[in-house]
Amino acid sequence: MADKQAKRERFEGVFSRIVDELLGYMKSQNMPDDAIQWYKRNLDYNTPGGKLNRGLSVVDTVDLLLCTDSDGKRTRELNDEEYTEAAILGWCIELLQAYFLVADDMMDASITRRGHPCWYRVEGVGNIAINDAFMLEGAIYYLLKQHFRTKPYYVHLLELFHDVTFQTELGQLIDLITAPEDAVDLSKFSLDKHHLIVVYKTAFYSFYLPVALAMRMCGVNDESLYQHALDILLPLGEYFQVQDDYLDCYGTPEMIGKIGTDILDNKCSWNINVALKNATPEQRKVLDENYGRKDSTCEQRVKDVFNAPNIDLKKRFADYENESYDRIHKLIDALPESSGLKRSVFVAFFEKVYKRSK
Amino acid sequence: MADKQAKRERFEGVFSRIVDELLGYMKSQNMPDDAIQWYKRNLDYNTPGGKLNRGLSVVDTVDLLLCTDSDGKRTRELNDEEYTEAAILGWCIELLQAYFLVADDMMDASITRRGHPCWYRVEGVGNIAINDAFMLEGAIYYLLKQHFRTKPYYVHLLELFHDVTFQTELGQLIDLITAPEDAVDLSKFSLDKHHLIVVYKTAFYSFYLPVALAMRMCGVNDESLYQHALDILLPLGEYFQVQDDYLDCYGTPEMIGKIGTDILDNKCSWNINVALKNATPEQRKVLDENYGRKDSTCEQRVKDVFNAPNIDLKKRFADYENESYDRIHKLIDALPESSGLKRSVFVAFFEKVYKRSK
Repeated sequence: MADKQAKRERFEGVFSRIVDELLGYMKSQNMPDDAIQWYKRNLDYNTPGGKLNRGLSVVDTVDLLLCTDSDGKRTRELNDEEYTEAAILGWCIELLQAYFLVADDMMDASITRRGHPCWYRVEGVGNIAINDAFMLEGAIYYLLKQHFRTKPYYVHLLELFHDVTFQTELGQLIDLITAPEDAVDLSKFSLDKHHLIVVYKTAFYSFYLPVALAMRMCGVNDESLYQHALDILLPLGEYFQVQDDYLDCYGTPEMIGKIGTDILDNKCSWNINVALKNATPEQRKVLDENYGRKDSTCEQRVKDVFNAPNIDLKKRFADYENESYDRIHKLIDALPESSGLKRSVFVAFFEKVYKRSK
Repeated sequence: MADKQAKRERFEGVFSRIVDELLGYMKSQNMPDDAIQWYKRNLDYNTPGGKLNRGLSVVDTVDLLLCTDSDGKRTRELNDEEYTEAAILGWCIELLQAYFLVADDMMDASITRRGHPCWYRVEGVGNIAINDAFMLEGAIYYLLKQHFRTKPYYVHLLELFHDVTFQTELGQLIDLITAPEDAVDLSKFSLDKHHLIVVYKTAFYSFYLPVALAMRMCGVNDESLYQHALDILLPLGEYFQVQDDYLDCYGTPEMIGKIGTDILDNKCSWNINVALKNATPEQRKVLDENYGRKDSTCEQRVKDVFNAPNIDLKKRFADYENESYDRIHKLIDALPESSGLKRSVFVAFFEKVYKRSK
């Protein structure tokens, strides 16, 4: 635990240097002080403060690839340069996430994020938050240019960020037009759409991106290994989001750190899509009339359908979890180990994700 | 004139192919039809429809660099491949501009753009426009990857877009916090800030970017020539925006195609900054009390100050115009012609810009 805390603090130390670097650039361009202070507040308010899982995953993956042998035994430690480079790539993912979240909160009209008011709701910010989101993304390419320009894998890093950003935006688009908060239409929902939303909106940037960046940094050039990584990490990301959806309804507030509101908010979640697939016409009518209403009685009626014996979401989730556990485990076991990509990279992710609910 | 129309139509033809390509990608990823149609409408509504000056400039510059001799005589025509590549780079600038404008209109709470409702005000769009703006930017890197990935100058194209995007966002930030529509504070204004806003928010992407992209495509590798281009094009872009600011107040609606509202909207324009610099304490008081008020009487009082003999904006603009004309002309004349970058590239821009009001 102390170890985990120290790891986090070392990683956060790199963020301070990143902020100094970005503000130093603005100073060098004679930008006015109020603009420099504004950008600092934007970076500090929106980038750290989450769990930092995605960013730390880059460092962990680089460490596994460079500093362990084929038996998983540590052979050395990352040197300062390697650590800093991995941490900068990690912070670039956190900046990408910050860019998405600042914008998502505006599009969803959310109130709080990580226990604080959403950035656009902070006094004096308002719609300037749109440009602030852009500038969080802008920081990524500034940092990559400063730190990786001379590396042979520089263009791969740029393409990874471009590709994954576009994929995430596509996922967000499908989500926005499938499940608008103010116009419930369950005929738009399906497990296929849920799959697309989850993979595009979450799995690419949260699961594939950290590993692929680390692989590029470690000189993995065999393109087939990136396909292997995708084949494992997209299903893992999908399981992660299904679990998240499930816990929104079935987890306790202590467990998930909030009170779930997916039913009230007309979210295209795994739960509703499984229910829709298995509902009788009568149950379907109850779902149509009560899903996405800002009303706790309606919410309870939906939950009653979720718990009906023919739907029984608890049982279906348990089955899905076991099935996906086995399936992904097999994918990891089938990975050719020799080639510079280690199973331990995926096992580390796997254990983090499956430990959440088990 | 017919020539100009034909040129525009050929350029617009490439946009249709670009849209097909982007939608083809979405289809290949099994995206739902409503998402594909949404993206098509986003691209079509926001990208063409302007003057296309920036995009066409890339084509014109490539044509000058590849198809004219040192005496300016045409030696050949662009082949289809060269034309298409130049046009795609041109459309990437238009996409970049569309990304900025969709967002700027939201931040400024604008009502119309190019004679139509702003995208965020279109029925059913609303705040989804934020993600739509992101996806206009996303298209740029998708297209660059598809069409330029194997070129030796690919990474330079990416860096040009990254750098200029970040610079434009910095300019927008300074503008937003210096001149918010709802809180007039003229002590924040200055000609220095105006210079920064104009160069960062407009000149980099509208003037430098088209030429620099064309130079990269034509294989210009001498980095000092990019500095020469900056040295000429940033002042030219600044003059263009000063002229735009001036005409907002002093141009006729027939001339500028709209009724200027910069005084009413608290814009940090060249006019107000020149007035502030030269105002007596009494005039300053009038400006403080009347600038940025949504009231035509207030607007008139500001205009009266602009026209007072000690300020006389008409005269000061004429002087500025002559001074900048000479200064930029000299910069163009001083350009070393031999080196693959031609004076005619800048003369073409120069004439377009100075012809507007002359």
